[in-house]
Amino acid sequence: MNIAVLGIGQMGYRLARRLCEVGYNVHAWNRTRQKAEQLAPIGATIHADAAQAVRAADFVLCFLDNGPVVDEVLFAGQVAQALQPDTLVIDFSSISPSEARDHAARLSAIGISHLDAPMSGGTLGAEQGTLAIMVGGKPAAFGRAEAIFQVFGRATHVGPHGAGQLAKLANQMIVGITIGAVAEALLLCEKGGAKMAKVREAIMGGFADSRVLQVHGQRMLEGDFAPYGRMSIQLNDLRNVLATAKEIGFDAPVTQMLERLYSDGIAHGLGDLDQSALFIELASRNGMSAVKDLL
Amino acid sequence: MNIAVLGIGQMGYRLARRLCEVGYNVHAWNRTRQKAEQLAPIGATIHADAAQAVRAADFVLCFLDNGPVVDEVLFAGQVAQALQPDTLVIDFSSISPSEARDHAARLSAIGISHLDAPMSGGTLGAEQGTLAIMVGGKPAAFGRAEAIFQVFGRATHVGPHGAGQLAKLANQMIVGITIGAVAEALLLCEKGGAKMAKVREAIMGGFADSRVLQVHGQRMLEGDFAPYGRMSIQLNDLRNVLATAKEIGFDAPVTQMLERLYSDGIAHGLGDLDQSALFIELASRNGMSAVKDLL
Repeated sequence: MNIAVLGIGQMGYRLARRLCEVGYNVHAWNRTRQKAEQLAPIGATIHADAAQAVRAADFVLCFLDNGPVVDEVLFAGQVAQALQPDTLVIDFSSISPSEARDHAARLSAIGISHLDAPMSGGTLGAEQGTLAIMVGGKPAAFGRAEAIFQVFGRATHVGPHGAGQLAKLANQMIVGITIGAVAEALLLCEKGGAKMAKVREAIMGGFADSRVLQVHGQRMLEGDFAPYGRMSIQLNDLRNVLATAKEIGFDAPVTQMLERLYSDGIAHGLGDLDQSALFIELASRNGMSAVKDLL
Repeated sequence: MNIAVLGIGQMGYRLARRLCEVGYNVHAWNRTRQKAEQLAPIGATIHADAAQAVRAADFVLCFLDNGPVVDEVLFAGQVAQALQPDTLVIDFSSISPSEARDHAARLSAIGISHLDAPMSGGTLGAEQGTLAIMVGGKPAAFGRAEAIFQVFGRATHVGPHGAGQLAKLANQMIVGITIGAVAEALLLCEKGGAKMAKVREAIMGGFADSRVLQVHGQRMLEGDFAPYGRMSIQLNDLRNVLATAKEIGFDAPVTQMLERLYSDGIAHGLGDLDQSALFIELASRNGMSAVKDLL
């Protein structure tokens, strides 16, 4: 079984390595060839050209930065023309639902199947094979891809082309909004005279509990805003939600409010901090210097 | 050990029963005496007058509807004057932080200790002894009350007088906002063509996971809006948050946004449904008749 992997970044590298380990023939390509070379010692074939990498592939997996990059890699060069008719293209990149539908349609026109399959769980999930994978496309294609998904984590077929990207947007909305809820609640308590670390402890395990309260709440209390997921990426996610909402005529008032708050935070210099630094933006606008001292 | 229990409603009844079961001498009072009478067969002494109930009490526990009711029960009649100097008053009611501080100050002036100790976990938590209890007041009083808290669940001392009520408000903010996040995200997916039940399944276990996604998300998908916690109570909670925020000069933009949405939902007739019916409000404003048909 030949698998082409296009894009050997943080995620692509870790997942290509897992595929090598379980015995697939991996054909790796990356714009900067040096990153792909790391996979050679564990058996991958490294290609200078993406069209070469996909020529004999049963599956083509994309781990690329955004929609325009996926577009360029698949369609600007010779990749689409080089694909065999029974090849399945699985795009694990996070791009917009409409871009994913467009890619699926263009590949379908030349007889190639496509799945959009964005992931959640980060580099740790990639290493441990515990990613959540949200998949849009035809049921038969999903069935063909399951053996690969199982190497990476837990995949769920959520609907037709583009639906995987919609689910990823939903994930990012919920995370971004819940961070706002936790930050606003903890700061209200602190300003009112309670100890916010104790408040968080008190409410964990109840209806207010969430992964965000556990993980991002801890970062807020420790003032640890090292970027696991950047403010700028969270803002970009919310803007992608709003762009998609506009396309389909959907009013998303809560996301709109949070888009403004992350945007304000970035205007105040927080863009390269972790998304949980929305806490600093809300503290600053409430003149909470004791909290600002955490910086 | 004599314990007076003032207010034998849904919570007071269940918790007074637990106290009887573990061997405390319970002195019960309720405005409607009939409700208190249910405790007589398991050993409680029923009093027609709240001042009588507290006369020999080491602890006075309040389970009342709101701040003005607590105020009236403690201070309008003879209760405060009937208390022994070493009595500890523990108010488990959900009232505003400023009301709790006021009660603590007025009791302190006559030599009586006070804790504010609102709870989260509902009647099920009360029956199972798994309530989360958020406690404000002096550390020594918290220490004295621990044996009682242990009968009810897990107590956390979150700060001085009023801090327990602040923590409860934080809990309600986070729940109310997270319901908005989950509803908006699921509806965006559905309108965009994904299957929202599958989206929820796909994102559970990741960073978007929460008790709200699990519990209230399930209610949204099933169209089960039977009132566990009513829309009208959620709105009231958010208004209490905003009133407290105003008192302490705190800007809470996310809570403000959600206050408007719950308020709109109630204006559209959803007040007596579960708080997760914010989903219906967001569906309606997006013209999603398929979802409205769930009603």
